[in-house]
Amino acid sequence: MSARVLVVDDILPNVKLLEAKLSCEYYDVITATSGQEALEKVETENPDIVLLDVMMPGMDGFEVCSRIKSNPEKAHIPVVMVTALTDVEDKVRGLEVGADDFLSKPIDDIALMARVRSLARLKMALDEWRLRENSANQFGVVTEKTNLMQEPVEGARILLVEDKDFDKNKIVQSLSQDLNIVMSVDNGMRAMELISSQDFDIMMVSLNLREEDGLRLCSHLRSNEKTRSLPIVMIAEQDDMPRVAHGLEIGAHDYILRPLEKNELIARVRTQIRRKRFQQRLRSSYEISLSMALTDSLTGLYNRRYLEVHLEKLIANNAHSNKALGVIMMDIDHFKSVNDTHGHKVGDEVLQVFAERLKNNLRSFDLVVRLGGEEFVAILPDVMPERAYFVAERLRRAIADEPVPCSVEGGFLNVTTSVGGAIINNGGHPIAAVLERADKCLYEAKHAGRNCSVFENKGKLDPEQYQEQERSFFDKEVEDALPPDDEDTNATQTQNGASS
Amino acid sequence: MSARVLVVDDILPNVKLLEAKLSCEYYDVITATSGQEALEKVETENPDIVLLDVMMPGMDGFEVCSRIKSNPEKAHIPVVMVTALTDVEDKVRGLEVGADDFLSKPIDDIALMARVRSLARLKMALDEWRLRENSANQFGVVTEKTNLMQEPVEGARILLVEDKDFDKNKIVQSLSQDLNIVMSVDNGMRAMELISSQDFDIMMVSLNLREEDGLRLCSHLRSNEKTRSLPIVMIAEQDDMPRVAHGLEIGAHDYILRPLEKNELIARVRTQIRRKRFQQRLRSSYEISLSMALTDSLTGLYNRRYLEVHLEKLIANNAHSNKALGVIMMDIDHFKSVNDTHGHKVGDEVLQVFAERLKNNLRSFDLVVRLGGEEFVAILPDVMPERAYFVAERLRRAIADEPVPCSVEGGFLNVTTSVGGAIINNGGHPIAAVLERADKCLYEAKHAGRNCSVFENKGKLDPEQYQEQERSFFDKEVEDALPPDDEDTNATQTQNGASS
Repeated sequence: MSARVLVVDDILPNVKLLEAKLSCEYYDVITATSGQEALEKVETENPDIVLLDVMMPGMDGFEVCSRIKSNPEKAHIPVVMVTALTDVEDKVRGLEVGADDFLSKPIDDIALMARVRSLARLKMALDEWRLRENSANQFGVVTEKTNLMQEPVEGARILLVEDKDFDKNKIVQSLSQDLNIVMSVDNGMRAMELISSQDFDIMMVSLNLREEDGLRLCSHLRSNEKTRSLPIVMIAEQDDMPRVAHGLEIGAHDYILRPLEKNELIARVRTQIRRKRFQQRLRSSYEISLSMALTDSLTGLYNRRYLEVHLEKLIANNAHSNKALGVIMMDIDHFKSVNDTHGHKVGDEVLQVFAERLKNNLRSFDLVVRLGGEEFVAILPDVMPERAYFVAERLRRAIADEPVPCSVEGGFLNVTTSVGGAIINNGGHPIAAVLERADKCLYEAKHAGRNCSVFENKGKLDPEQYQEQERSFFDKEVEDALPPDDEDTNATQTQNGASS
Repeated sequence: MSARVLVVDDILPNVKLLEAKLSCEYYDVITATSGQEALEKVETENPDIVLLDVMMPGMDGFEVCSRIKSNPEKAHIPVVMVTALTDVEDKVRGLEVGADDFLSKPIDDIALMARVRSLARLKMALDEWRLRENSANQFGVVTEKTNLMQEPVEGARILLVEDKDFDKNKIVQSLSQDLNIVMSVDNGMRAMELISSQDFDIMMVSLNLREEDGLRLCSHLRSNEKTRSLPIVMIAEQDDMPRVAHGLEIGAHDYILRPLEKNELIARVRTQIRRKRFQQRLRSSYEISLSMALTDSLTGLYNRRYLEVHLEKLIANNAHSNKALGVIMMDIDHFKSVNDTHGHKVGDEVLQVFAERLKNNLRSFDLVVRLGGEEFVAILPDVMPERAYFVAERLRRAIADEPVPCSVEGGFLNVTTSVGGAIINNGGHPIAAVLERADKCLYEAKHAGRNCSVFENKGKLDPEQYQEQERSFFDKEVEDALPPDDEDTNATQTQNGASS
């Protein structure tokens, strides 16, 4: 994949040499001869990669890198420091300000091209995600800003494949400093076993295993959907560069050469952890956007759109079951007067508490939805009619028996709900008809004086009957899926303060 | 990037040879020696690419390819046909059943590796999108199923960069058959100009331009964000294979060799059009998911979540403007009784018509939101107070003056709305306070007898005053942004049928 590379060096022949090499491989090259010019080009020219000389008069490479990485819009652009310095301290300093790699002058062509290709690929993948994040931001769905350099670098799970005890111990010890959990194994087979049962943030793979070729393992990780984007850091000998280049080609993210230097090791692993977490965050923004499409923002319950999609499935499943589907529709009594008397803020508080109580009194696989306004519906899959009656009454009491805390004088309002229910058998019903049946009963409950439950073919439920019998009716299994007893006891202990 | 490659050939030595070559480059290789086995492995092993022999006993390669491509779950897996046949007809037949390319035996290593690498990259990019589409499907947000092979292959916009008249004419003529629009230019500079002002579905680039290197153009296209994923088909001479391989490496999608064969040309371009449109569809599923998060499913208006994000911005902008922000809150009068008397279906119809009328009577940059239930709000940026009063009355009349068509006896219901408004100056107000101020006036409008508008610091508006003066008040500019006159005339001609 081609890419736009920004070459920065204050010595023109150095710029020209790199430009020629990259251009020959059909990269789009732009150049800068000072730190200041580099920052301007990063801003205006959208490079995919920056090759950055360290020693420059005025603003040096460290400073340039540090400024690029502190700009949330640009921090994801990979930076490779190019230097005649071989001091480990300088290398680590560069990595710590966010550089993705170091290349030593004179530049080895294999190392250069392998590195540029690999970083170009990472950059393109990130760009896709950032594009998506931008459109999510535009919609205002996800407003949290992501910034690569602000990702935490500690507490990652690392899987190390290394059979040399000396280096293994050194790695485990060095990385533990950042509170990482490092698990180490001797061979690829064992690594694949662990990967199948656990999640890791990073893999480190030795290219000098005694019994096998570490690159084979890298290739295998890349070919599996589960591990395709797992960052891989290769561990190699100084004279392994051609194989390292091959590894980058296969899709490894980075490498470190022996003898391992503790600080370099830590810095490189931190870079990978940061990139991994950044990408994860971009992904989860997407998941959040989706889930927001299906939930009610005030109560956090599912919305009508979700109900329509899933009720259809539940009705279809129900056709093949010998149990029934319970549909319980609820409407807060005289809710309009709450809004009119106390304002919308109080109304919203009441809706939130109402939603909370519904959730607490249903099983985890029951579906609770705010249809809109003060109307709610609960769908109970695989339920027997008697159980649906109990649940309806249980929900009604959960509202009526305990005043709702909200911002009014006295701190509480008495609220009640009317409940209408229907039992659906044998599938095949259109959604609208099913909801209509429960709605009709809800209407009857309103006419029967509110704060009561009416079921199709059953009529108004006797509150006392269901309150008394409930405890003995539940079999053990159902009981376990419900909230703990004390909540229930609380509810029945409080006064019955129903308001019309 | 490594990938899992399925090699299919009935002759074992052929399988072994390809396996060795690919394995040496660290691809994960799986094999099959019959068409049936190939289909099973495609199903169970998730290959990223299939290398498929054409001549096999039993089920031949064409049939295998055709079956892979007719399976919506597998159609996106690239298939390369491998054959000793050199007949153009066979080649075209393969492309037409959905093969992505043809390789001739004996296989040229450069061509093989370049092709496999390029297809692996395309596959990975598609996988990312499909993953996302799957999660959208799980949520039930987007239920439409996408299938690569069902994308239309006609009517694409193609930009051809070719300076040889003979081939240029041949391409234009051949591709016009599929109703494509082909624009052709002689050089890269002219191509970049066109691209900056127009959108194309595909680029075709000659690698044998007299004045420049076509690969340089390909590289440039890949380095620009706008054209990064635009499919490129290279046109090359038979002995150009090393440069073609380089082009695939840079990111071109496909190539065709001279002398150009009409049917092959058409088939290859169709494949690219299909892939482009498939990817576009996956992208737009994502955009749809996002927009669903911000709209009300019943009316299509924006929802409260959107209002919260954008009102904040509008208030902030307003701080720097010398105009004001109008906030108009509306509530359908006695809506509960519509639901109770006629059912929810009728209630929903009323809400939909109501929303439609609001939209038709506001400027395109005004913001109309359904807050929930029967409550709506319109935000008017950059508006003078008098204009806000007019608009409020205009909206009120748009509801009251014309009965709402819905499924009741007689076909219409008389509906009215109460309106509360506030004018926000100088920014800096919290959203909740702004909405609260309009809400308070709405409450006053209800108490003043409904079907009227009350504004903060202004009181109840005189309907006759605003109806008469409206026409003369509007300046030309504002007028243009409003719906055509006849709509307005209709509204005032009908009876005033307000119900309480």
